[in-house]
Amino acid sequence: MPDSLLELRDALRAFAAERDWDQFHSPRNLATALAVEAAELLEPFQWLTEEQSRDPAPATRAAVEEELADVLLYLVRLADKLDVDLNAAARAKIVRNAGKYPVDKARGSSRKYDAL
Amino acid sequence: MPDSLLELRDALRAFAAERDWDQFHSPRNLATALAVEAAELLEPFQWLTEEQSRDPAPATRAAVEEELADVLLYLVRLADKLDVDLNAAARAKIVRNAGKYPVDKARGSSRKYDAL
Amino acid sequence: MPDSLLELRDALRAFAAERDWDQFHSPRNLATALAVEAAELLEPFQWLTEEQSRDPAPATRAAVEEELADVLLYLVRLADKLDVDLNAAARAKIVRNAGKYPVDKARGSSRKYDAL
Amino acid sequence: MPDSLLELRDALRAFAAERDWDQFHSPRNLATALAVEAAELLEPFQWLTEEQSRDPAPATRAAVEEELADVLLYLVRLADKLDVDLNAAARAKIVRNAGKYPVDKARGSSRKYDAL
Repeated sequence: MPDSLLELRDALRAFAAERDWDQFHSPRNLATALAVEAAELLEPFQWLTEEQSRDPAPATRAAVEEELADVLLYLVRLADKLDVDLNAAARAKIVRNAGKYPVDKARGSSRKYDAL
Repeated sequence: MPDSLLELRDALRAFAAERDWDQFHSPRNLATALAVEAAELLEPFQWLTEEQSRDPAPATRAAVEEELADVLLYLVRLADKLDVDLNAAARAKIVRNAGKYPVDKARGSSRKYDAL
Repeated sequence: MPDSLLELRDALRAFAAERDWDQFHSPRNLATALAVEAAELLEPFQWLTEEQSRDPAPATRAAVEEELADVLLYLVRLADKLDVDLNAAARAKIVRNAGKYPVDKARGSSRKYDAL
Repeated sequence: MPDSLLELRDALRAFAAERDWDQFHSPRNLATALAVEAAELLEPFQWLTEEQSRDPAPATRAAVEEELADVLLYLVRLADKLDVDLNAAARAKIVRNAGKYPVDKARGSSRKYDAL
C-alpha cells in the first residue's frame, strides 16, 4: 500500500500540473500560505480555555478539520518543492528532540530544553 | 509497511507519555505551537525573492528542513488529540479544492476561487 | 508635541532612506516580516497558562518588550507604504467594534459578534 | 494634544471595562489574537508579487486597512496589560537596530545583521 505522504505529494503534483500552478508554487509563496493557514487553524481556539479546546463545538471541529488539511497540503507541497523527505525529516527530529528532552529531566515539565 | 502518518502519530504518543506531557498537549497549546513553527519556517524566506527561495543556501535549507519537521510533528499531534484522520481530511480537501478550482477556470491563475 | 506614530513613521523613513532599503520594503515583504514578529511575540507565551502570562519572568518580559517594538515598527512602516493613517484606521475600527459588540450583549462574553 | 498611542490605550481600557472583558485579556490571549490578525493582514498579499503588493486593488486595500487597525489595537492592549510603554520600546529598538545595521555595511543589502 502506498504511503499517505507520498500519495498526497503525487496528488498535489498532478493538481498543480493540470492548473499550470507550478509558476506560483515558489517555496516563499508556499511557506506564506502555510503560515496563513496555521493562523486560521489557531483562530477558533484563541478565546477558548485549554479545557474548552479539548472538546470543541461541532462547527468548530469541522472548521478545524479543514484547516488541519490545508496545513498538511501546503506542507507536503512545500517539502516537495524543496526536495525534502518529510517523513525522514520528522523522524530525525523526534530523535533530536529525545536528546534535547531526556525523560528524567523533561518529565512533567513544559520548560524549553535550555531551561530544564 | 505501516503508514508514515500513523507511525509518526504513534511515536509522538509514546514520546509524550514517557514525559507525562499529555497535560500540556491541549489542542489550543498545540495549535499555538504549530503557528509559531509555521512562522519560523517562513522566517528564512521573508527577504528572499520568489526566485531566490527556489534555491536556498545550504544553511537555510538545513534550517528549513528542521522547521518542516516541527510543523508536521505538531500537526500530527494536534490531529491525534482531536481524533482527526489527517490523511482522510487532506484527501477530502483535495476533492473540495478540485470543485472550487475547475481546471478550465483556474488554469494559469493565482486568483482565489471566489474571484475566478 | 509631535505624535508618537508620526514620529516613528518619520524615523523609519529616514532609517530606510539612509540604507537604501525602500527597494525591499514592499507591502508584501513588510506584511511577512510583521507576521513573523507577531509569532515571535507569541512564542514565549505558548506553554504558559493565561495566569502565568499575566506575570512573566523578567527575561521573558524583556524579550516580549523587544518583540512588541518590532511589531509596531513593521506595522508603522507597512501603513506608511500603503498611505494608511494608522491612528484614524484604529479609531474607526473601535467605532465599528462598538457596533458589533453592544455592551448589553457582549458583557462578560468572549463570543464572536456573530455568535452573541 | 494627547498622543495617539495613549489615546488608543485609554479608549481600549474603557471598551474592555464596559464589557467586563479584562478577564479574557490575558497577555497570552492577546498575543494569540495579535498573531491571528497579523496573518489575516498577510493573507491578501500571499499570491501577489512584491510589485503587485505596492498597488493593491481597492477591495484589498480596504481589507488591509482594517487588518492594520486590528493589529494595532491588540498591540496597544497587550502592551498596556504588560505595562510596556510602546513608544519608548519602539524608539529604543530603532536605536538598537541602528547599531546592528550600520549604514556603511547595511546599505542596499537585505541580509540579516549577523550575515552583513
